[in-house]
Amino acid sequence: MRIIVVGGAGTIGTAVVECFSARHDIVVAGRQSGDVRVDISSPDSVRDMYRQIGSFDALACAAGEAHFGAFETATEAELALGVHSKLLGQVRLVLLGRSLISDGGSFTLMSGYVFDDPIPEATSFAIANGGVEGFVRAAALSLERHIRINAVSPGLAQDSYEQFGDFNPGRAPVAMHDIASAFRRSIEGWRSGEIIRAW
Amino acid sequence: MRIIVVGGAGTIGTAVVECFSARHDIVVAGRQSGDVRVDISSPDSVRDMYRQIGSFDALACAAGEAHFGAFETATEAELALGVHSKLLGQVRLVLLGRSLISDGGSFTLMSGYVFDDPIPEATSFAIANGGVEGFVRAAALSLERHIRINAVSPGLAQDSYEQFGDFNPGRAPVAMHDIASAFRRSIEGWRSGEIIRAW
Repeated sequence: MRIIVVGGAGTIGTAVVECFSARHDIVVAGRQSGDVRVDISSPDSVRDMYRQIGSFDALACAAGEAHFGAFETATEAELALGVHSKLLGQVRLVLLGRSLISDGGSFTLMSGYVFDDPIPEATSFAIANGGVEGFVRAAALSLERHIRINAVSPGLAQDSYEQFGDFNPGRAPVAMHDIASAFRRSIEGWRSGEIIRAW
Repeated sequence: MRIIVVGGAGTIGTAVVECFSARHDIVVAGRQSGDVRVDISSPDSVRDMYRQIGSFDALACAAGEAHFGAFETATEAELALGVHSKLLGQVRLVLLGRSLISDGGSFTLMSGYVFDDPIPEATSFAIANGGVEGFVRAAALSLERHIRINAVSPGLAQDSYEQFGDFNPGRAPVAMHDIASAFRRSIEGWRSGEIIRAW
């Protein structure tokens, strides 16, 4: 399969690329690096990415920003960052890519555990993740040509544990390989409209 | 208690007002009618609403738009309507009201069953509802002065059944009183960070 990994140079994206590259043809898309540059917060940039890549069989997204910081002092713009980048950016990847992906292809978006089990600093992520999960379940009902869509909800990634462990008392880190395996279940599996939890 | 009901003239808002008005002092806020006019998609309008109302003990929101229509032809702007109105509008009510509400007060926002059990036409609602549920769970961790926040997730309201029943094969309507009771559980109850399902 020809698989686009958006955010393929990030913490989780790197693990996804590593898991898939032996068996599939991977196109890494990223803001700062990768085979193709893309900023998912810009519709023009997403259109340009698809134009450069041409045909593809699957897209996995491990990209999208949100605000991390105390809720008490968070502004509306900070909380909305997750909506404009992580949520609407991922929606945009599907809307602009749905006519281009192969028959039987799949989109795998990324939400995250803070939707179900939030921490105060990640309110912007919790908002975005919930939106992504709602979108995936609803969009799956309408995609045609056997195109599937799922979301992976990663736990606290092992490679982020040093940075974020202290904000998550008692939360065990999830091995990078287990997060990548959740993407594999989506991309090489059969189901659609699912939230695949890696935690 | 002095309770603001945003969207208090709408289908669900009317039932909420009816349920509470015998026991509490109700201020109805709405776009087209009510004691105070407010458009929750505008920060200035929300600020103006709070300025006019002054002190209050609880806010219930039964307002917020999203797009209803086929997913296949939905544009990004249509899908994002729910984000800008129903999702960020409700976030805004909390951010701008959190310093004004009484000690021990509560915010009750509204999500909806299509997050959990979507129908194709309501993808924009599913996105918004998920964001609202993530926000409520996360914000509850940080609100001070015993201020609480919950979301009511109504099912298909009896008073909307004639209009939307055909889009929801097999889904039983929920009595308006049962939806209002979910708001009562939030406002007169004790828990916080909960999604109270009325279906």
